[in-house]
Amino acid sequence: MAEVDQAQLFEFLCRMGDNTLVLGHWVSEWCGHAPVLEEDIALANTALDLIGQTQMWLGLAAEVEGKGRSADDLAMLRDVWDFRNVLLVEQPNGDFGQTMMRQFLFDAWHLEMLGALAGSSHDQIAAIAAKSVKEVQYHVERSGDTVVGLGDGTSESHSRMQKALNLLWPYVGEMFAADAVDNAVAAAGIAPDPAALRETYDARVGAVLAEATLSVPEDGFAHKGGKSGFQHSEHLGHLLTQMQWLQRAYPGASW
Amino acid sequence: MAEVDQAQLFEFLCRMGDNTLVLGHWVSEWCGHAPVLEEDIALANTALDLIGQTQMWLGLAAEVEGKGRSADDLAMLRDVWDFRNVLLVEQPNGDFGQTMMRQFLFDAWHLEMLGALAGSSHDQIAAIAAKSVKEVQYHVERSGDTVVGLGDGTSESHSRMQKALNLLWPYVGEMFAADAVDNAVAAAGIAPDPAALRETYDARVGAVLAEATLSVPEDGFAHKGGKSGFQHSEHLGHLLTQMQWLQRAYPGASW
Repeated sequence: MAEVDQAQLFEFLCRMGDNTLVLGHWVSEWCGHAPVLEEDIALANTALDLIGQTQMWLGLAAEVEGKGRSADDLAMLRDVWDFRNVLLVEQPNGDFGQTMMRQFLFDAWHLEMLGALAGSSHDQIAAIAAKSVKEVQYHVERSGDTVVGLGDGTSESHSRMQKALNLLWPYVGEMFAADAVDNAVAAAGIAPDPAALRETYDARVGAVLAEATLSVPEDGFAHKGGKSGFQHSEHLGHLLTQMQWLQRAYPGASW
Repeated sequence: MAEVDQAQLFEFLCRMGDNTLVLGHWVSEWCGHAPVLEEDIALANTALDLIGQTQMWLGLAAEVEGKGRSADDLAMLRDVWDFRNVLLVEQPNGDFGQTMMRQFLFDAWHLEMLGALAGSSHDQIAAIAAKSVKEVQYHVERSGDTVVGLGDGTSESHSRMQKALNLLWPYVGEMFAADAVDNAVAAAGIAPDPAALRETYDARVGAVLAEATLSVPEDGFAHKGGKSGFQHSEHLGHLLTQMQWLQRAYPGASW
């Protein structure tokens, strides 16, 4: 196994933690607003799971970085250009169907990724993944069931879900496109080659979308620039402005 | 003439400056988004006028306070509970019609208020008002014309304007309700009794709304709590989060 460069390991851990942080924040905005009480509580729980995972990923990232920053510092005091989440998770909530489609498309990748990371050569990463994958197994079942229920529902819910899929599908590809960071952690046995997750992902997602009577867009175009930090969408800055407000206005504030 | 308490004068100046700051920020959000280019430019100019007036009001407020704060400090580093704007101006943009109705209902008060303040016993206040009233004369003509055009327009535009009026009318009363601060500055000949502006306001607003074929809601209920700072609506905090982001994230940043 190759030795991994610590700066690249830091990048990889930020990717994992920023994905869960950004998605967790969006999902938390549904608290008190979901269409039915059951969904409201389920979404709040999902958000809490994701923020809890963030604490672990960014905590380890901070440790690897070794510059005295904490998980909170990374979450609350970095600006948009330092975020490493994929573009999919920073896309806005939209309606409930769009939120659930985004969740399913991410959950299905997240499950495969965490399953592979549970066998990581890096003990702490393997431990975080093993804990997280149990939560994500539940997330993907739940989001998948909702995609089926709404996709194969009324004509209104079907058309909204198809619209959500058309909107979000171009953000799927980025999760499987490897770059230097991915190659470095893969070579060290720390993480899988992202492309190796695609087949299982396509099988799971394809089956759910078929049951949901939804059509996968044929255009294979995929946006990129999120996990490299090269070009985030406009939505991330707005999200950070809201999320980081308290620590920016009252530096060092704590409960 | 009574001597005015400097703390009450400071409050009064914050009310004037916070009104123009908060409304100016909301209006600036239309830049690049208004329905036609002419309106886009007009709204951007209105926003600039209002922010320019803010500079003068809050600059004088800071001078009166005498604690070394600047207009920028007051605008960018106070939190929601220290803002003294009326509730009307913190109500969200909504659609273009709602924005123009809010603008007209404020402009018509603003014109009367500035006209009276131009004769203030306080020289600096009189000077700021004399400069501002020329701009606001233009604002109220423009917003009034738009209210007429849309109110007496298509059935769609009419119904949207009536809806906007119904939404915003309960925020009109606060502008004319005097409290201890208003009484103190009135007694010193600095500002008019707000109630004295109501008759002219009602005449102007009534004529425009009649021409716009819109009906003033009969319910006389009026919200309050904005200019006293006692209870702002939820919208103000969100606006400040956006507006103050740069100074909060990068304290002391300047061009």
